[in-house]
Amino acid sequence: MPLILDGKKINSEIRQDLSTRIAINLADGFAKPCLAIIQIGNTKESTKYIEHKKKFGHTIGAEVLHIHLPDTVSDSEVLKEISSLNTDDSVHGIIIQLPLPKHIDRDVLVEAVISSKDVDGLTSENIRGLWTNDKGYILPATARAILTMLDYYDIQVSGKKVVVVGRSTLVGKPTAMALINKGATVTVCHSGTVKLADHTLEADIIISAVGFPRLIDEHCVRPHQVIIDVGTTFIKDEEVEKITGDVDYNAVSQIVAAISPVPGGVGPLTVSSLFQNVYDAYLKKIGK
Amino acid sequence: MPLILDGKKINSEIRQDLSTRIAINLADGFAKPCLAIIQIGNTKESTKYIEHKKKFGHTIGAEVLHIHLPDTVSDSEVLKEISSLNTDDSVHGIIIQLPLPKHIDRDVLVEAVISSKDVDGLTSENIRGLWTNDKGYILPATARAILTMLDYYDIQVSGKKVVVVGRSTLVGKPTAMALINKGATVTVCHSGTVKLADHTLEADIIISAVGFPRLIDEHCVRPHQVIIDVGTTFIKDEEVEKITGDVDYNAVSQIVAAISPVPGGVGPLTVSSLFQNVYDAYLKKIGK
Repeated sequence: MPLILDGKKINSEIRQDLSTRIAINLADGFAKPCLAIIQIGNTKESTKYIEHKKKFGHTIGAEVLHIHLPDTVSDSEVLKEISSLNTDDSVHGIIIQLPLPKHIDRDVLVEAVISSKDVDGLTSENIRGLWTNDKGYILPATARAILTMLDYYDIQVSGKKVVVVGRSTLVGKPTAMALINKGATVTVCHSGTVKLADHTLEADIIISAVGFPRLIDEHCVRPHQVIIDVGTTFIKDEEVEKITGDVDYNAVSQIVAAISPVPGGVGPLTVSSLFQNVYDAYLKKIGK
Repeated sequence: MPLILDGKKINSEIRQDLSTRIAINLADGFAKPCLAIIQIGNTKESTKYIEHKKKFGHTIGAEVLHIHLPDTVSDSEVLKEISSLNTDDSVHGIIIQLPLPKHIDRDVLVEAVISSKDVDGLTSENIRGLWTNDKGYILPATARAILTMLDYYDIQVSGKKVVVVGRSTLVGKPTAMALINKGATVTVCHSGTVKLADHTLEADIIISAVGFPRLIDEHCVRPHQVIIDVGTTFIKDEEVEKITGDVDYNAVSQIVAAISPVPGGVGPLTVSSLFQNVYDAYLKKIGK
């Protein structure tokens, strides 16, 4: 049996670690770290994700402001809100929960967040930091979660062949770039790739972030590989809603050395990674 | 014998094309496109490159402002200069000739250039455009030169395996990202890559931008491949200064299907690509 890369376990350790650190800061007289979440409209998924974030935040002793705006809000009203959060010294991180209603200009809103509080790592300045491998930029939470998982299990990336499947700006591209910066030889595969298995079979580590169930099956993998599944697809199984990844877990787990399951892999880690971003921004702010 | 990817020839066609277009715009009563080049200090190489750019610009009927500042200039004096060029309606492109003296903060200066005139494609906003594959961003000239060369010879990239050797922010990363956006499956190799040949032998197209002579030799290539050499190393050969690429041209050209030589390949195309960027910025400005 392969090593199961246990996101729940790492998540729980990060939660404990952040709780302790925040408690120490509070004892030293500092304020709580605070994340502001802007939600526009009532997408069911968004509400659920925000509830997770609130719960995690409260458990570690952080403040979570939930700014819930109606579907009918205008760009300029949201911009006013962002501007006030940008200058509010008690707020350390700001995220705009995606997806947004169609009439809202996502790029303009995202770019309006001051980079030092952009804990989703989406502003031009943070992308440039990742691009140039500067110190101190903020890496998107999912990419950070993947690096944390590899690091936790002492899976070296420098000098390794990594195949990233997916070229999204939220996961595929930042993960690929962060791994290139860390010395991995990275191949980015995507919907335009001919014969995906030709690439994945050559890899030491496969990271799949597409959202297509069973994309990575037994023909795509070989022994000794590490598989990180970042796919998220909601399926109905006998009327019960379930979440599934990109990897045919039953088939692939018979073959490879290590694998992250869905659910219970990268998913639980994204929320803790987000709060690590918030905590880093907070530390900078309080000058620690 | 392989197809020689002739940068001089393409350069000459672009020069002719830009000359004609600019002449038409002048006849229509528009002003000349204008590139401002800021040089700090007296690096011999910089002076030479700037001379090339001036010559090309004048040949096509563009204006080239050469703003030559002494080695002792302060960041704030350069920033003042950039700010005045940013607001000058007669200037369509601004570049800061690299390398800069050590006391100058390169990042601050580069970022001070307004993105619409950043014809080197180095500001956060242009990097983000490339990252998110937006329309209208400015691609760094060398990456544009490589795409132009492939396009000129009808070498398809979509669905192809491309190995980019080098992860610089000026060439390797933007070239890789532009190719991913165009549907290529791209592997980024670099100094941390173990067994480079394992990767290059799998490629349809190899693009090398490292600056290490004979890095790509006969063991790295196979028949039917396309080789683009973006390496630039100055060597002395019997007291004569020569320029050489990353590819062992004599050995590799016996094997592959197509190859760009050094000199005479991507090099001559970078200046014409820069002026294509200037011309695009100019067109936007005059509303065409």
